[in-house]
Amino acid sequence: MASLSSPSNKGSFVVKSSLIEPDGGQLVDLVVPEIQRAATVSEAETMPKVRLTKIDLEWVHVISEGWASPLKGFMREDEYLQSLHFNCLRMKNGSVVNMSLPIVLAIDDEVKERIGVSNNVALTGPNDDLVGILRSIEIYKHNKEERIARTWGTTAPGLPYVEEVITPAGNWLIGGDLEVLQPIKYNDGLDHYRLSPQQLRKEFDKRQADAVFAFQLRNPVHNGHALLMNDTRRRLLERGYKNPILLLHPLGGFVKADDVPLDVRMEQHSKVLEDGVLDPATTIVAIFPSPMHYAGPTEVQWHAKARINAGANFYIVGRDPAGIGHPIEKRDLYDPDHGKKVLSMAPGLEKLNILPFRVAAYDTVEKKMAFFDPSRAKEFLFISGTKMRTYARNGENPPDGFMCPGGWQVLVKYYESLQAEDSPQKQTVLSA
Amino acid sequence: MASLSSPSNKGSFVVKSSLIEPDGGQLVDLVVPEIQRAATVSEAETMPKVRLTKIDLEWVHVISEGWASPLKGFMREDEYLQSLHFNCLRMKNGSVVNMSLPIVLAIDDEVKERIGVSNNVALTGPNDDLVGILRSIEIYKHNKEERIARTWGTTAPGLPYVEEVITPAGNWLIGGDLEVLQPIKYNDGLDHYRLSPQQLRKEFDKRQADAVFAFQLRNPVHNGHALLMNDTRRRLLERGYKNPILLLHPLGGFVKADDVPLDVRMEQHSKVLEDGVLDPATTIVAIFPSPMHYAGPTEVQWHAKARINAGANFYIVGRDPAGIGHPIEKRDLYDPDHGKKVLSMAPGLEKLNILPFRVAAYDTVEKKMAFFDPSRAKEFLFISGTKMRTYARNGENPPDGFMCPGGWQVLVKYYESLQAEDSPQKQTVLSA
Repeated sequence: MASLSSPSNKGSFVVKSSLIEPDGGQLVDLVVPEIQRAATVSEAETMPKVRLTKIDLEWVHVISEGWASPLKGFMREDEYLQSLHFNCLRMKNGSVVNMSLPIVLAIDDEVKERIGVSNNVALTGPNDDLVGILRSIEIYKHNKEERIARTWGTTAPGLPYVEEVITPAGNWLIGGDLEVLQPIKYNDGLDHYRLSPQQLRKEFDKRQADAVFAFQLRNPVHNGHALLMNDTRRRLLERGYKNPILLLHPLGGFVKADDVPLDVRMEQHSKVLEDGVLDPATTIVAIFPSPMHYAGPTEVQWHAKARINAGANFYIVGRDPAGIGHPIEKRDLYDPDHGKKVLSMAPGLEKLNILPFRVAAYDTVEKKMAFFDPSRAKEFLFISGTKMRTYARNGENPPDGFMCPGGWQVLVKYYESLQAEDSPQKQTVLSA
Repeated sequence: MASLSSPSNKGSFVVKSSLIEPDGGQLVDLVVPEIQRAATVSEAETMPKVRLTKIDLEWVHVISEGWASPLKGFMREDEYLQSLHFNCLRMKNGSVVNMSLPIVLAIDDEVKERIGVSNNVALTGPNDDLVGILRSIEIYKHNKEERIARTWGTTAPGLPYVEEVITPAGNWLIGGDLEVLQPIKYNDGLDHYRLSPQQLRKEFDKRQADAVFAFQLRNPVHNGHALLMNDTRRRLLERGYKNPILLLHPLGGFVKADDVPLDVRMEQHSKVLEDGVLDPATTIVAIFPSPMHYAGPTEVQWHAKARINAGANFYIVGRDPAGIGHPIEKRDLYDPDHGKKVLSMAPGLEKLNILPFRVAAYDTVEKKMAFFDPSRAKEFLFISGTKMRTYARNGENPPDGFMCPGGWQVLVKYYESLQAEDSPQKQTVLSA
């Protein structure tokens, strides 16, 4: 019977890939060269326009920089069906690449009508600025129910990405080859953190990294995370690597409303490095531009695959990666162990090796985050992201040693600012 | 971008595989040898018992004969997750086999409790007779919602297999290696049609077939089906095959209540051969023991894979294979073209080649089933399975040339018998 040496132990672990070289090692680069830009603009002006939402633009960013390479644009139906049914794409040469999330662009009946028989369309941003072109387009049906069911394993109402993106979207998907006029920028003071896969690869080279281990997160960094990252580095050194570099890689696209906003998280991450919890000399902090699906085992494959494209060769994955509570039942939507199991078996990620980790928790005796020791289970406290946010929101301090003080203060300040906004006085002013 | 030469034309087509040899060419054979039977029975009597439903037993039949080879039993969690997320299993040697449907056995809390820490369980039939053993078991959670969503692409209530099998099932799945005491028999007068993959392979050898083309169906054979099958044979001869053999392979397991029952279908298929619509000399009629999921693009992969295991190397697939109406919306559940597209791209079935077919319909001018000619579309009549059943139910005759008279009479007789059962007089007697 088919079987894999998947880890039987619970908790977090590290997944290793031998450097997978997508598309013959060449990342796609879909930015129109400077010299052709004027001509491309003129050409685009003759084309039917498709207006992108904020999140569509995040995907344009993702595709154009090669995070989803070898994908060269929004998926046509063949790619979409393979992604939905198999979580991977078969390449012309017979090889398989992982592609677990449908990366698609939706349009409504009116836009479809306007496009008519055109072969190419121009893409405009939420402010109607010209962003790029989609060439050799294919328009096909957007069966939302099927997309949601196969991506999330539920159709229960209340999934954040579904509510924000899919439900309001049109009934058609448009695929094609993408060209962008220039690199996507946000002008929010954080663009210097938005390194493309190519820029990251250069940075790893510059630092002479012989191992790169990526840590995906969408929450503030606490000392349990830090323990995991520092212990990974220790293990890599033990295994003979001379210069392992940590890619601390917070997700920068769409997150659900009660997650901590990106600017606050980036400030918090800075403090964690300032406070010396992570070593700035061996850490690169950058933003991963993808929006968040909260699709658990399906999404964690995307998170790993994109980082491999950026040159990471170790990927740390914990309990219930990309998970979320069930939108209408009182339980986790996904089995917390399924993420790492599915990742360890995912097609196109076959060369990942697994280095098991125990789960980290707060040791109430040692007063620090430590690897969970089941022989004295009662002395450990599990503090979830939700619990952490509740502490900060209520102005309570978490136990000593849970997070560095500088990082914690960033969160406290943020939640105080929220409460100020929510205060009845402020609301009165706003509604006046 | 990843792309495949999938056919752009609509309608039916034939898929060819180079003979895929699962498990090193050896089909699993899970029947306990005669000489060990008494010992196995004694051993089983010491084990906790798991009672199978009728449909569980159909799956035991399927697994034990090697239709799902290299699967050696009900899926453990690793197999289940791979099937659910990737529609395929990765083998220890790195190769990939298609496995699109979860083949699982559900148990409830009470049975799980009774099993305790046992390593093996005995399987008993619906009548409490000992059927076999499941060894080295693994028990894991049965998340019904996720299973349904990922298998069918919907969680809408009313899917026949879900209502019959999954909703009433327990909250745990039990996997392990299967042994059956003896080949599964039904004693319904149709067992001689139930040829195992090994028996079919021997039969193809005996007939010196140099090509085997399989036709999956769960409906009576009309002349449109026959046209497709006969035309496939013609094409294979044209391509240089000397002795192509048709495997007419009706599904024999669970079907929805309004489908024509197996015994009636088998009688109808006999008439089609008697009437010479299909050539008995080059046709083998056998029963495929699997239950029907009505899971469209996901299930058609299973239908093709199982027939390849039985030695078929061509698989005919039409419009909307294994499709069904949406249970609560007025539309097909699946895009009618997705089945063949997904099949053509399915992992583990990479070597399938596609021979396109036009769709068959009733030509009202020629008064026969013919390949649809779009240049005179108005002269063609599409008669669905539902429409065909409606004709027979209402005692109406379909247009001349739609089905051979002997075959049609079988259906008429069946629907008359149903009406007799449903008549008020009969109902009064029954309720008295």
